[in-house]
Amino acid sequence: MSKEVSEEGHSHQHGKDYVDPPPAPLLDLAELKLWSFYRALIAEFIATLLFLYIGVATVIGYKKSGPCDGVGLLGIAWAFGGMIFVLVYCTAGVSGGHINPAVTFGLFLARKVSLIRAVAYMVAQCLGAICGVGLVKAFMKHYYNTLGGGANTVAQGYSKGTALGAEIIGTFVLVYTVFSATDPKRSARDSHVPVLAPLPIGFAVFIVHLASIPIAGTGINPARSFGAAVIYDNDKVWDEHWIFWVGPFVGALAAAAYHQYILRAAAIKALGSFRSNPTN
Amino acid sequence: MSKEVSEEGHSHQHGKDYVDPPPAPLLDLAELKLWSFYRALIAEFIATLLFLYIGVATVIGYKKSGPCDGVGLLGIAWAFGGMIFVLVYCTAGVSGGHINPAVTFGLFLARKVSLIRAVAYMVAQCLGAICGVGLVKAFMKHYYNTLGGGANTVAQGYSKGTALGAEIIGTFVLVYTVFSATDPKRSARDSHVPVLAPLPIGFAVFIVHLASIPIAGTGINPARSFGAAVIYDNDKVWDEHWIFWVGPFVGALAAAAYHQYILRAAAIKALGSFRSNPTN
Amino acid sequence: MSKEVSEEGHSHQHGKDYVDPPPAPLLDLAELKLWSFYRALIAEFIATLLFLYIGVATVIGYKKSGPCDGVGLLGIAWAFGGMIFVLVYCTAGVSGGHINPAVTFGLFLARKVSLIRAVAYMVAQCLGAICGVGLVKAFMKHYYNTLGGGANTVAQGYSKGTALGAEIIGTFVLVYTVFSATDPKRSARDSHVPVLAPLPIGFAVFIVHLASIPIAGTGINPARSFGAAVIYDNDKVWDEHWIFWVGPFVGALAAAAYHQYILRAAAIKALGSFRSNPTN
Amino acid sequence: MSKEVSEEGHSHQHGKDYVDPPPAPLLDLAELKLWSFYRALIAEFIATLLFLYIGVATVIGYKKSGPCDGVGLLGIAWAFGGMIFVLVYCTAGVSGGHINPAVTFGLFLARKVSLIRAVAYMVAQCLGAICGVGLVKAFMKHYYNTLGGGANTVAQGYSKGTALGAEIIGTFVLVYTVFSATDPKRSARDSHVPVLAPLPIGFAVFIVHLASIPIAGTGINPARSFGAAVIYDNDKVWDEHWIFWVGPFVGALAAAAYHQYILRAAAIKALGSFRSNPTN
Repeated sequence: MSKEVSEEGHSHQHGKDYVDPPPAPLLDLAELKLWSFYRALIAEFIATLLFLYIGVATVIGYKKSGPCDGVGLLGIAWAFGGMIFVLVYCTAGVSGGHINPAVTFGLFLARKVSLIRAVAYMVAQCLGAICGVGLVKAFMKHYYNTLGGGANTVAQGYSKGTALGAEIIGTFVLVYTVFSATDPKRSARDSHVPVLAPLPIGFAVFIVHLASIPIAGTGINPARSFGAAVIYDNDKVWDEHWIFWVGPFVGALAAAAYHQYILRAAAIKALGSFRSNPTN
Repeated sequence: MSKEVSEEGHSHQHGKDYVDPPPAPLLDLAELKLWSFYRALIAEFIATLLFLYIGVATVIGYKKSGPCDGVGLLGIAWAFGGMIFVLVYCTAGVSGGHINPAVTFGLFLARKVSLIRAVAYMVAQCLGAICGVGLVKAFMKHYYNTLGGGANTVAQGYSKGTALGAEIIGTFVLVYTVFSATDPKRSARDSHVPVLAPLPIGFAVFIVHLASIPIAGTGINPARSFGAAVIYDNDKVWDEHWIFWVGPFVGALAAAAYHQYILRAAAIKALGSFRSNPTN
Repeated sequence: MSKEVSEEGHSHQHGKDYVDPPPAPLLDLAELKLWSFYRALIAEFIATLLFLYIGVATVIGYKKSGPCDGVGLLGIAWAFGGMIFVLVYCTAGVSGGHINPAVTFGLFLARKVSLIRAVAYMVAQCLGAICGVGLVKAFMKHYYNTLGGGANTVAQGYSKGTALGAEIIGTFVLVYTVFSATDPKRSARDSHVPVLAPLPIGFAVFIVHLASIPIAGTGINPARSFGAAVIYDNDKVWDEHWIFWVGPFVGALAAAAYHQYILRAAAIKALGSFRSNPTN
Repeated sequence: MSKEVSEEGHSHQHGKDYVDPPPAPLLDLAELKLWSFYRALIAEFIATLLFLYIGVATVIGYKKSGPCDGVGLLGIAWAFGGMIFVLVYCTAGVSGGHINPAVTFGLFLARKVSLIRAVAYMVAQCLGAICGVGLVKAFMKHYYNTLGGGANTVAQGYSKGTALGAEIIGTFVLVYTVFSATDPKRSARDSHVPVLAPLPIGFAVFIVHLASIPIAGTGINPARSFGAAVIYDNDKVWDEHWIFWVGPFVGALAAAAYHQYILRAAAIKALGSFRSNPTN
């Protein structure tokens, strides 16, 4: 009886409506003995590799085709956002589907993953990103080198401060969506909104690209920026590379704080008195 | 046993099939003592800020890039519609996910929210919109001022009456979708259509933009128009600004009336005799 | 106990796995006494009105903007397809969400709706379509008349036979999707594919537009073609108008026959012995 | 009681959480006596016919319109990806919804279908593809012949090795998504991610097209490439045709191996000790 579980995986028929998992330990050496830990690392590596391969190949193909013949900036935004939808869908059950050091950082801050796992994920993501961009370069060497290499740099007409701000807000949107999608209180509070996590997460990436491709190409994923920087290896790219680590990490920190201290504060207490949701 | 709840959060095994919440009181001073009330205001503020930041940044980036190089009108429509999908998904459980004074007005008319809450939401939405557009101006001051500031004005070749009509019908489509998506009778009447509220709501915004961007840029959200008007602060924009309040409010009123008096009238009585739905 | 119903609205715990509704009677005069019948007609009228308003306004706006500045053919395809997604979502519980005489015809052939209801729906759809296109003409009279009026005609370089064939196959795709989405056997046979009817139906309309806008603008909905023909009232449009009734009705007939005689034939008997579905 | 089945079709209340179907036999002559076997072949034939008709008609229409007036490369990517979404949705319950010899090959390697069924599916898919492209040629003979016939060839500026690599990785993405979407362990491991198989599968096809249309038009489906090659019948197309069989089959092999040996290895054992998934 107590195993009866709704579609969203949360138990009903408890007094409490949802199960809040305990915080992940900071150092969990036992993880290192589990095959599932290494399988998760492999999944993050492969997923980030595929993400960068598809994304950067789309960017290079677009630049080769010229603006009117190619997929357009809209197609590039779809490539990055759609691929995150597909990959989060595929890897959520294996590694949690981060595919992004900023997401891992945000979930680490919220104590959803241990420090060991967070660091290992980030290393796997960066290695995967390097290999993914490396594949694009191997496949289309000439075009890759002459067409910007898919690297993130600040576009003419914008300052570094603007690029940093765009990275912070863009990553805030993404990590806020991740927190909303994976909140165990979700089914208790808004059971009329099924938790289809991967689709809104993919859309968040898509939308942020629409707004910020013209500014600095859109990072909001340090592994994505790092992989392209390593393979393209250009001075201007490296000079500005800090923006694509600092911005996403600050944005993830802000989203984690917003979710934990504003949205979830006193959430349990408020549950009974909450009347605003039109359909409850 | 009586707590057994379907995925959509509605109880079965009752005589009545669904629970119709009582109408919200007009003045509910007790709300003002709840943390959840202020949390909802914060969520509406942040969501509208993010909505305007992404939307207006996309508009400015598009105009800077030129028609062939940028994301296109289609990309702008996706930015507004996709962002509504993401934000309704994220905030539905906290504030109901209005992000739009016209939606709040429609739900107030249907007695889903109290007057106090409705007014407070609208203030939070307008402040959030001002801050969101303000961020875009802070990030790209020169382009913001020279490229129209993302403000809604009637395009050359169209009259104010046309713009008003387009706002009325466009908001009707949006608020009709919101009512359909959050109808507690929904699961009783058409249980084969899962209630995935945020996706059709986002699509409604997307589609309306496709049809009416060429007319007056598409408001269907007074906070969106107001935020851009305050920050851009242009005479023509202020002269026509009433269109983007009157139109959406009339459209929301029409949608609320259509839903309450036509679609739901006698719905209970008709339930047993209804035979047209092919799969029931 | 026997009221326990899965998310898709089909009973489990029977010997039979699903409930096959009895065929609708050919003439059901009792329907005429039900408010739900007239409510369904109003819903079909309003939905088709909104569908044509959004669709034709997008077409006229696109032609006014010029190819590079507007939403593009892709935007037009999204307007028609996305609007069908939204409107089927909104009206499925009230009228079944046909919004298209060809869909009504297909469901009539399969005995899902009575003859009276089928005819009444088609009249409501055609009147709604006329009003929707009329609104576009009222809003943008000059552009409406000079930019083709959103009417379906055979494009230069294609024959009437090609247009007829494109209408037949396009409507086949749409009505086949409608049958698949509303099949009561669905949950029994492929319960791993949740029945999210409106989204694939909307996508079917979107995709067919991508393939056949260049041929004859894409009808696959006689009410859509009829409404534009009445308001635009042009000789060439009326000369070719039969294509946009004959094509869709033949396509709907083929889809109904395919679904009833091939896919569902002996489906019950085969259920136990069916082994190909990888996840069952 | 033991028939109580969750939305995803997997039994709960077992000791084991999910049901792993036994491997399909290599040769299952009993299948040949079932109507469901032939119905599945018809469904694969019709679905591949419709897939190629819509896809190739979109390609020809795009090339006729010119880059700025047509649906763009983005529209072509949507036509192929969106159609796969619709068709997998429609045929999943009848044939499993392969519509692609590479998918059939991958599922055969994983012992989800028998050898007889795999070969029969591939034949049906190839025949359907030929008929689908044949229809396009019949409808628009002149344009079909002069505008490339929708056939896959290596674009100028790319080598055959690059095209082969792009086919391998693209098919890997697709088949990896298919395996993830239909994994019976899915609901046990990540029940917060509902199994909406057709949508991510369609998106995978869409995204891969964005990345690789500029390289060789994107096959990742030998039936698609074969059907166009047979109807277009051009020397360069036939010379390079092996790429569009070898690439997809190698990609499907890699995805099957990755899924079976990495992701599922020791999955049962690891289940209890797995702690990384943030919401479990």
